Amino acid sequence: MKAFVTGAAGFIASNLVDRLLAAGHSVVGYDNFVTGQRRFIEGALKSANFKLVEADLLNTDALRSAIAGCDMVFHLAANADVRFGTHHPFKDIEQNLIATYNVLEAMRANGIKKIAFSSTGSVYGEAKVFPTPEDAPFPVQTSLYGNSKIAAEGLISSYCEGFGFQGFIFRFVSILGERYTHGHVFDFYQKLLADPSKLEVLGNGKQRKSYLYVQDCIDAIMIAVERATDRVNIFNLGQDEYCEVNQSIGWICERLQLKPTLEYTGGERGWIGDNPFIFLDCSRIRALGWTPKMSIQQGVVTTLEYLIANPWVVEARP
Amino acid sequence: MKAFVTGAAGFIASNLVDRLLAAGHSVVGYDNFVTGQRRFIEGALKSANFKLVEADLLNTDALRSAIAGCDMVFHLAANADVRFGTHHPFKDIEQNLIATYNVLEAMRANGIKKIAFSSTGSVYGEAKVFPTPEDAPFPVQTSLYGNSKIAAEGLISSYCEGFGFQGFIFRFVSILGERYTHGHVFDFYQKLLADPSKLEVLGNGKQRKSYLYVQDCIDAIMIAVERATDRVNIFNLGQDEYCEVNQSIGWICERLQLKPTLEYTGGERGWIGDNPFIFLDCSRIRALGWTPKMSIQQGVVTTLEYLIANPWVVEARP
Repeated sequence: MKAFVTGAAGFIASNLVDRLLAAGHSVVGYDNFVTGQRRFIEGALKSANFKLVEADLLNTDALRSAIAGCDMVFHLAANADVRFGTHHPFKDIEQNLIATYNVLEAMRANGIKKIAFSSTGSVYGEAKVFPTPEDAPFPVQTSLYGNSKIAAEGLISSYCEGFGFQGFIFRFVSILGERYTHGHVFDFYQKLLADPSKLEVLGNGKQRKSYLYVQDCIDAIMIAVERATDRVNIFNLGQDEYCEVNQSIGWICERLQLKPTLEYTGGERGWIGDNPFIFLDCSRIRALGWTPKMSIQQGVVTTLEYLIANPWVVEARP
Repeated sequence: MKAFVTGAAGFIASNLVDRLLAAGHSVVGYDNFVTGQRRFIEGALKSANFKLVEADLLNTDALRSAIAGCDMVFHLAANADVRFGTHHPFKDIEQNLIATYNVLEAMRANGIKKIAFSSTGSVYGEAKVFPTPEDAPFPVQTSLYGNSKIAAEGLISSYCEGFGFQGFIFRFVSILGERYTHGHVFDFYQKLLADPSKLEVLGNGKQRKSYLYVQDCIDAIMIAVERATDRVNIFNLGQDEYCEVNQSIGWICERLQLKPTLEYTGGERGWIGDNPFIFLDCSRIRALGWTPKMSIQQGVVTTLEYLIANPWVVEARP
């Protein structure tokens, strides 16, 4: 297959690109390098089966021309900055919803009908059922990020209904692993590098979250795309466990051999729209034969090892 | 209160404007007159408490200036053209989502924090529970229209969470009554005027739908805005009954004393993204003391009487 991967130089997508190439597929990677890192696709660029297009998803001409001839789209580009939605409310609409619309229209113009999409467990808002299944009670959105993702999901399923597309929608928990560039392990490590004696923790540290290792995430995407046969296929992707932020801090400090004073900003939530508890029911994807190989603790430590071994990743962000 | 009403010259909003004025409120009506009808606000224009601003919601400068000094917003403007979403996929995004974003930003710029919003029962996609409650299982969107409304709902609830707004979200069934300008009664009446001997029916005529009389709908909005106290208040608005399209055809033909040959286009759905069964659980709004006064049959006949008495409404649309 000739795959089109958006956000190809990003954390998850660059790992997906490598996996697709290793499986013998051709890949066109599309990235605007606003948050993507050229070093993440150094390996891919050595392959004759990889082509990089440096452009923005809001540039519809570049997009339509780059996507031509591809068989399937993996749309992973996004504004993944969950915390600062209220600082720039239009950014999520533009980067997540309108960009998705542009991808769908470029597909339609080129007769491409298969799309995999990275959504988020944040679409459940403050869920009332744990672990949360895909058909949980109709959520009330609490973040502009989660809302832009649910709107993009709905665009995709409307194109499936209206234009005969097939969609694979993945609602991720936070993903960990190699090429990780943002999230709590990043933030804590960056803060501890600056001052090992103390650590500011957003909220009360009791937020319960689930995490998934990036290679386990990609396993699931590959299995779903191969085996799921519905017109619209929606899957939660997460671990069958969760941890408290405080536990994760423990693992990080143990690895770094640090005993910082913990300074909690207080409150149940780390930021506006933060969900104090994320724990997804992943029995639907497990029923297709998927099993994650790494625990949350292993994922956190692997991520930390990666950041320690790649100081440029931390330095690349102020 | 000084109310800001978007889509003020439209079917439901113009009735709401009259009601707000009758209750002693001041109203600023905003409409671009793309589908709005000047004759619907002839009465309102005679009131010293009514001000009309003729502008588009995509004109953010006009919007910010018109909304200044208002206490509450009733955002009813929309692309309400459900059937033709796939003919122009960006229209729903622009008219329903971006327009709502513009309204919210104009409110934020002016310190206005209370918004009532007309959503739709279409957000439930093809529901699995009937009557469908507000917290029905997480739906898969089947229409661009329904999806643009759920995205607008989520924007509003995100502004409630992020900026301290209070939201009143109403998921309407199809509304009937005076100033009705589109929908099945309109279509059937228009077709029968052109040729009383036959009637084309989209689908198999067995679609089951619920309808609500416009004054009952406005009663519910007024009661909810007065009595609901949550940050985000979501209400289904419909009747505790539904009818088959064929039943409604029977009432219409009886009133017109016609016996046309019925020509079904066939299939369970009238169009792409049509929901063959819409029936909402309205116990949440009923618990606030609301009771509709008109049955579906009375609503259909009242609508037909209105169209018969106002031939210009039918003539205004090709």
